[in-house]
Amino acid sequence: MNNFEFKNPTKIIFGKDTIEKVKEEIPQDAKVLLLYGGGSIKKNGIYDQVKTALANVDVVEFGGIPANPEYATLMEALQVIKDQNITYLLAVGGGSVIDGTKFLSAAAVYDGDTPWDILTKSIRTEKGMPFGTVLTLPATGSEMNSGAVITRAETKEKLAMGGPGLFPEFSILDPQVITSIPQRQLANGLMDSFTHVLEQYMTYPIGALLQDRFAESILQTLVEVAPTVLKDPTDYQAASNFMWSCTMALNGLIQKGVPGDWAVHMMGHELTALFGIDHARTLAVIAPSHYKYNFEAKKEKLAQYAERIWNITEGSTEDKAYAAIEKTEAFFHQLGIDTKLSDYTKDYEGTAEEIAKRFKARGWKLGERQALMPEDAEKIVKMAY
Amino acid sequence: MNNFEFKNPTKIIFGKDTIEKVKEEIPQDAKVLLLYGGGSIKKNGIYDQVKTALANVDVVEFGGIPANPEYATLMEALQVIKDQNITYLLAVGGGSVIDGTKFLSAAAVYDGDTPWDILTKSIRTEKGMPFGTVLTLPATGSEMNSGAVITRAETKEKLAMGGPGLFPEFSILDPQVITSIPQRQLANGLMDSFTHVLEQYMTYPIGALLQDRFAESILQTLVEVAPTVLKDPTDYQAASNFMWSCTMALNGLIQKGVPGDWAVHMMGHELTALFGIDHARTLAVIAPSHYKYNFEAKKEKLAQYAERIWNITEGSTEDKAYAAIEKTEAFFHQLGIDTKLSDYTKDYEGTAEEIAKRFKARGWKLGERQALMPEDAEKIVKMAY
Repeated sequence: MNNFEFKNPTKIIFGKDTIEKVKEEIPQDAKVLLLYGGGSIKKNGIYDQVKTALANVDVVEFGGIPANPEYATLMEALQVIKDQNITYLLAVGGGSVIDGTKFLSAAAVYDGDTPWDILTKSIRTEKGMPFGTVLTLPATGSEMNSGAVITRAETKEKLAMGGPGLFPEFSILDPQVITSIPQRQLANGLMDSFTHVLEQYMTYPIGALLQDRFAESILQTLVEVAPTVLKDPTDYQAASNFMWSCTMALNGLIQKGVPGDWAVHMMGHELTALFGIDHARTLAVIAPSHYKYNFEAKKEKLAQYAERIWNITEGSTEDKAYAAIEKTEAFFHQLGIDTKLSDYTKDYEGTAEEIAKRFKARGWKLGERQALMPEDAEKIVKMAY
Repeated sequence: MNNFEFKNPTKIIFGKDTIEKVKEEIPQDAKVLLLYGGGSIKKNGIYDQVKTALANVDVVEFGGIPANPEYATLMEALQVIKDQNITYLLAVGGGSVIDGTKFLSAAAVYDGDTPWDILTKSIRTEKGMPFGTVLTLPATGSEMNSGAVITRAETKEKLAMGGPGLFPEFSILDPQVITSIPQRQLANGLMDSFTHVLEQYMTYPIGALLQDRFAESILQTLVEVAPTVLKDPTDYQAASNFMWSCTMALNGLIQKGVPGDWAVHMMGHELTALFGIDHARTLAVIAPSHYKYNFEAKKEKLAQYAERIWNITEGSTEDKAYAAIEKTEAFFHQLGIDTKLSDYTKDYEGTAEEIAKRFKARGWKLGERQALMPEDAEKIVKMAY
């Protein structure tokens, strides 16, 4: 097990009819900017629940934060924060709204040239503007971590940021919110959280027995609840296990003391930046090829995963490992998610080269051993055509 | 799954040679009271590591906190805190020293009649004197939770306390500390953490799939590493998994959203108060009888545990459940721990009645359904003679 530090101060408020508790978490004298996305919260009743709870608080609103939160939009929100002397941010949405809010939390206190620096110069925020979240879409885990990913359409870039000052002060998780989420987004949430675990688990054995079992616990739970979540999102037991699994998949716990990969995300981000493919679906495109390409380096963990998640106990390490990749791809299909780039775009020619070029320009070496070079990424993306 | 709130702000610093980091966590201008136990830290080098790290900090010392931290001793330490204007507490020890430090953290800011109130009147501490810990004995999980248990010899009482202000600010966990721990205490640590998980898990099914699997992950890891920990405490892989499992067993995570029992601890505490039996060993005495006595109420979870921890897949729910209790008792024996009260004292007659009398006087109804009455406790303790 590697040495590690772990601290996660976010307060989670989880369960049925908990949204009204938002009023107990935000200081009464705060001037709040309520941030949300495309407006679905106005149809599903969540907006009304939040507004009712905050009836006695000074609240300004900023809606329209898009999926893959867009820098230009966020810069408009930043202007509102400054013009209106906002002191507290409240994200009501999924990972995109929460990530956008984290950027704003950082940007509101950043005194450099341009807030874009935070992304390009990897500025870590030690203390941002305080914020909380009301989660409306289980998927990214952003509600209990201190990271964010921001997109800039102008330059077709998608970059990560973070820092210890960017944990939400609180996050409210009412599993009932999933009843109004479209199938497509439920599938994305299952896919996203499943891949988050894989990125922290599918590396090489390091003797971190408990972290492995925790990771496997989340994978098993997602596999178990996925069919019910998709078939009947009003099933509270499935919804609550789905929601808590998504949070635990990326709140820092399972990554502690173990190597992390994250190459699937790095390649996937480029597919979103280039083609606008849903983040979760880019992971489904890249993951199977990534595991096949890096088979030798990952086969021990793949075989362990085969046994413990998919009950594949016959055959050699290689047999089990390969069967596990096939099972994984079949699971993605079961979620209704396509796993080839050509399923999403006809213009895929040249994509691998373009991604390799970008990685080269950034000097990126990816994977748990920083041994995955731009030319490897090129081959993996080609395998995923 | 039940509704829950979860917040755990303790910073964990985990790994080899991490004790020196204590200097980065304590404010340079603090006046520190370093608290420790019987002095083993002076033999195993941990005291020197801490003192070296804090060479530039004003440190007063208070040693001699006994196992089952004693109120009278802690009152002496409280006097030192007041006389010396201490501003920061540092526990260097196991659960007893850390629990004692939590009491002091609370007592230092309590302005009621007598600090004993904190225990008898269940005073919850919202903000105590800040403190950190250097863990020297994996077992209780006190290093990452906000609870404590304090003993008062004068009245033969052992009572619990806690509050959101009693999380350590930081805890340093260097698994190498176990190399100097006597076998007896290593076995106690394995026993204690295993039972912590059982108390939060062995209740009734509530559809909290992820919490169940996390609990099972800790149990599996403890079962897996126990023989190596006892045979060769210098095995770093076993030591690190043991240490992290103990912390995760009682840091609040696996109890969220599920019913909790804790009757084994409540009965066990009385055995320590009456006979001075090691805390962990009282759990081994009570647990098998408790699960047999409450068999009907717990058999579904016992059977799940049988399958997932002990690979018992044959037979009815009852068969598996009963076999699991036997496997559990055998595991305790494998740790070198006796499971009958008569193994520890010849004066056991009347114990069950005395415990029932105490529970009755306190109006206690125990267990996950608060349905275990003093007369049930009497029967369970008798079964454990």
